[in-house]
Amino acid sequence: MHAYRTHTCAQLTKNDVDQSVRLSGWVHNKRDHGGVLFVDLRDHYGITQIVADSDSEALPVLEKLKLESVVTIDGTVKARDAAAVNANLPTGEIEVFARAIEVQSRASDLPLIVNSAEDYPEDIRLKYRFVDLRRERVHANIMLRNKVIQSLRRRMTDQGFSEFQTPILGASSPEGARDYLVPSRLHAGRFYALPQAPQMFKQLLMVAGFDRYFQIAPCFRDEDLRADRSPEFYQLDFEMSFVTQEDVFNTIEPVLAGVFEEFSGGKSVTPAGEFPRIPYAEAMLKYGSDKPDLRNPLIISDVTEHFTSSGFGLFEKIVGGGGRVRVIPAPNTHEKSRKFFDDMNDWARKEGFAGLGYVTRKQGEFGGPIAKNHGTEGMEKLYAELGLGENDGLFFAAGKEKDAAKLAGAARTRVAEELDLIEQGCFKFCWIVDFPMFEWDEDLKKVDFSHNPFSMPQGEMEALETQDPLDIKAWQYDIVCNGYELSSGAIRNHKPEIMYKAFALAGYSQEEVDANFSGMIEAFKLGAPPHGGSAPGIDRIVMLLADEPNIREVIAFPMNQRAQDLMMGAPSVVSAKQLRELNIQLSPKAREATETARSGESTDMNTNATVRDEDPQAQDG
Amino acid sequence: MHAYRTHTCAQLTKNDVDQSVRLSGWVHNKRDHGGVLFVDLRDHYGITQIVADSDSEALPVLEKLKLESVVTIDGTVKARDAAAVNANLPTGEIEVFARAIEVQSRASDLPLIVNSAEDYPEDIRLKYRFVDLRRERVHANIMLRNKVIQSLRRRMTDQGFSEFQTPILGASSPEGARDYLVPSRLHAGRFYALPQAPQMFKQLLMVAGFDRYFQIAPCFRDEDLRADRSPEFYQLDFEMSFVTQEDVFNTIEPVLAGVFEEFSGGKSVTPAGEFPRIPYAEAMLKYGSDKPDLRNPLIISDVTEHFTSSGFGLFEKIVGGGGRVRVIPAPNTHEKSRKFFDDMNDWARKEGFAGLGYVTRKQGEFGGPIAKNHGTEGMEKLYAELGLGENDGLFFAAGKEKDAAKLAGAARTRVAEELDLIEQGCFKFCWIVDFPMFEWDEDLKKVDFSHNPFSMPQGEMEALETQDPLDIKAWQYDIVCNGYELSSGAIRNHKPEIMYKAFALAGYSQEEVDANFSGMIEAFKLGAPPHGGSAPGIDRIVMLLADEPNIREVIAFPMNQRAQDLMMGAPSVVSAKQLRELNIQLSPKAREATETARSGESTDMNTNATVRDEDPQAQDG
Repeated sequence: MHAYRTHTCAQLTKNDVDQSVRLSGWVHNKRDHGGVLFVDLRDHYGITQIVADSDSEALPVLEKLKLESVVTIDGTVKARDAAAVNANLPTGEIEVFARAIEVQSRASDLPLIVNSAEDYPEDIRLKYRFVDLRRERVHANIMLRNKVIQSLRRRMTDQGFSEFQTPILGASSPEGARDYLVPSRLHAGRFYALPQAPQMFKQLLMVAGFDRYFQIAPCFRDEDLRADRSPEFYQLDFEMSFVTQEDVFNTIEPVLAGVFEEFSGGKSVTPAGEFPRIPYAEAMLKYGSDKPDLRNPLIISDVTEHFTSSGFGLFEKIVGGGGRVRVIPAPNTHEKSRKFFDDMNDWARKEGFAGLGYVTRKQGEFGGPIAKNHGTEGMEKLYAELGLGENDGLFFAAGKEKDAAKLAGAARTRVAEELDLIEQGCFKFCWIVDFPMFEWDEDLKKVDFSHNPFSMPQGEMEALETQDPLDIKAWQYDIVCNGYELSSGAIRNHKPEIMYKAFALAGYSQEEVDANFSGMIEAFKLGAPPHGGSAPGIDRIVMLLADEPNIREVIAFPMNQRAQDLMMGAPSVVSAKQLRELNIQLSPKAREATETARSGESTDMNTNATVRDEDPQAQDG
Repeated sequence: MHAYRTHTCAQLTKNDVDQSVRLSGWVHNKRDHGGVLFVDLRDHYGITQIVADSDSEALPVLEKLKLESVVTIDGTVKARDAAAVNANLPTGEIEVFARAIEVQSRASDLPLIVNSAEDYPEDIRLKYRFVDLRRERVHANIMLRNKVIQSLRRRMTDQGFSEFQTPILGASSPEGARDYLVPSRLHAGRFYALPQAPQMFKQLLMVAGFDRYFQIAPCFRDEDLRADRSPEFYQLDFEMSFVTQEDVFNTIEPVLAGVFEEFSGGKSVTPAGEFPRIPYAEAMLKYGSDKPDLRNPLIISDVTEHFTSSGFGLFEKIVGGGGRVRVIPAPNTHEKSRKFFDDMNDWARKEGFAGLGYVTRKQGEFGGPIAKNHGTEGMEKLYAELGLGENDGLFFAAGKEKDAAKLAGAARTRVAEELDLIEQGCFKFCWIVDFPMFEWDEDLKKVDFSHNPFSMPQGEMEALETQDPLDIKAWQYDIVCNGYELSSGAIRNHKPEIMYKAFALAGYSQEEVDANFSGMIEAFKLGAPPHGGSAPGIDRIVMLLADEPNIREVIAFPMNQRAQDLMMGAPSVVSAKQLRELNIQLSPKAREATETARSGESTDMNTNATVRDEDPQAQDG
């Protein structure tokens, strides 16, 4: 018989009755039924009920053991009484009568209870993450993450992609988000940087001819943290050669739709091939956002034309000044009180907007100051055009185009939430496309890149030479799901002459471009294929599938919001020798901060100090 | 028709003759046959021959293009003349007559030639890695690496393992190899460290109950570099719960044997289930090494007993002083000159050993000073015992046991190489087991741990309480293939009381253990399963399979031996602002070193500065 187990805790069924078995696991729960002890024995796979009565030598041992102790039980499988059968448990038809017990690990008092859904402060959970991870929900989240990544890998491989590792010790980039730096010991005063994304490397893999690259890529960003941010996070980073934007979409839709269908738990998913492509301008108009939540049925309309000469002076003034008036329908709000509408206006003001106008309607009767001033005829015309009914209210967002769009977008979400209109049980994907290549920088009074200067402009050189820069779109796209942006992506500009021209339109000379981006441009001068890609966020995908609002719920060993690993004690004070070797010194502030810490601090979990390491590098010759 | 290609460059065959096709790729080669140009068009998948004659508008374009330019060719598939068929090429039966051409990327002069096997200095290869990677051998190595890792993942998953990511920003450990450190911005004076291996985390995953963990884990070590070392490297890190050492072996042998069989290119591989288990003591005796190359048929023997009272005074003296005499057979060396044997002795001295004695034998006749002094009768007795023949020579390594073993091991390799005895075309695996738990520290005159204090001692508490510490073995093991250690591993000590006892035997108090290793021990006090694992080196596996002696040949973007990324310019000088934010300063030496650099340096490939990033973390409002 195996030293620890003949079966896992999820395996035994009625077919095993009368068998002698050995099980190992954690004491999940104990119930004392007067001289008979029932124990739920838990392992990674499931739970099996152990019974110890006064005949069993296991009884006195189990009685004394604390929960979460690890034991090996020898016993016999018995069928449960019909009344005791637990249909929710794969092993619910049997129990194991314990004959003998070996204690593998005696638990002391626990900092948090495993067999309960009770909430604990995050600090406790993270300091004792190895206990927290035993809890059903966290355990399930981490297993889901593993399965999602495995599925993504399989689907990418099936699409002809190969996975390559790109360097983690890389070069710091002067702008962008903040890098994590790594001092070089061999090169005094120089630093590596951890990658914010393997963008350069994946493009160079295309230049190297690898055609279809992907990587479950660790990325790092030294930014202030929030619920949905972690200093290290993972992307499904991918890039393809000889493709158009449509090729990228057609390749990646089956991957995303597939993995969402696989793990959505029955929620509907936009089918591959049917992800709507929404131009950026349309998204800003209809949804007031470039990350529209398509579960929300409300559509914003521009009704500016109706208010060029309205009785409603405020709108007339806005429109006269070049502003826009946008409306968000509030269907079937005839029974909503005036307070409902006024509260929306208050909410908008609290969010920093000028205010949200409204029209009420009840059995065809309009209400509110806008309707009053605009007149019934005007309102009826407006309603007819929007296809609204006699019990639908209407909210108004007016102002400069950008402000009106933003307010309308926020109001669209708010109204739908208040009216409970957001469709549940579904994942709705879309692509946002046709981002403008350039935008007008009001401060500098010049044309500048709107997003990514390295995306290919639609129409390529001809567009740059003949069109108004502000009309040129880029081959750039976002993947959005339920209002969350999973990733940006683009067809890259792989032609140096087009790059120089695009930069020239934004006011940069060829010399400036060469000075800053010579490496990439030089690479493109040695034979570069057309290529493009994207990098959906893995953590975000798992968060959506697990329905968790906090990224730390889908990472096995997350840092806290202060970027600390409370379990291992990172970041920590290091020795003077280490700093000397790296040719760096602490700033006076840092010295002061650590002087006190250094004396009181133990090394915590950093125990593997003298461990003979499992790395063969250190061993060979 | 697709914008870039209807087929890849490896797809077209005779079945496609007369079809109109579009191909894209790199101009691999051009051959001008007097007005007709033959071009090898290359992509990731293969090569297709393009023909352009004077009727083709592609001809003048192709004529002017430099090699490695990227083009799209529209043309018609034609069958090649029988004489021109290339059986080595999947597309060797056809060629494509070019009708039209579009130049996607015009290459300028190349720093290295792609279509040749010519060797280039490593600096050139690494600076232009994106060109170097196009070369057949490097491209094949990187694809092999991808496939090996994919296969390892599949095999581990099939064995019930789940992959989890462990943190890359971790805690520094005070001993062990040198950590790469990452200054914390939020915690002045504190540092993260990049993991040398996820040892602690994988053990905590077992404590958390995940049962079977693996990870293709990036590991980092700031050590001086060699051909087989890289600052970042990958391990197949794994750990299992409720297992004995045999369970680990039985689980991992199919994975390793399987992946080697899959990619060995016909070389034989030790079958799963048949990896020899060689106790450490036996390995040191028979192979003079704990990393024996079993392709070498020579076996070392201990013949100390023969020389307790030999006529050969030197050996008698060594044996009298407690030393050992070990022999390495040199079969069928009757035709070797005296010089062969003397050269071996010279080699041993050059390697720093006292010298390698020898006996020659030719048709039964012994020769050399050892034989002369030891006498023919003694020599015959020795030869009979060793089963040696009348034409076999014999080398002698004598000295203190450790020295004799080491010399014998080195000589075993040297002799087999000189006599060309090492079996080719095979991968021979073995496990080295039964490592001693403790050893005698001659300097400190005390018992200390030999390898890993956290391995479980064989016999557990009882052994520690009843046996001579120097007799106790550990549940610790190495995987060795063809003389290379792929990894160490162990069944871990998960019981605090046994850990305290083991440390006590090595002279450490419970207080000292708690002070240094409290974290791990505290975790083990909250319910820990028996567990064990290992971490075979991925780079080493790929090096063996690709038959490459240099780790940089199996990494897509390696650093050079000075830990520099010549392509991206890492490590690099960073801004004063970055250092200020991190609360660190350069040492005077570093300041001086970078002062000059800072002025002259461009930012190289660090171009993605203003790129709109593909990370959703940064986007979500």
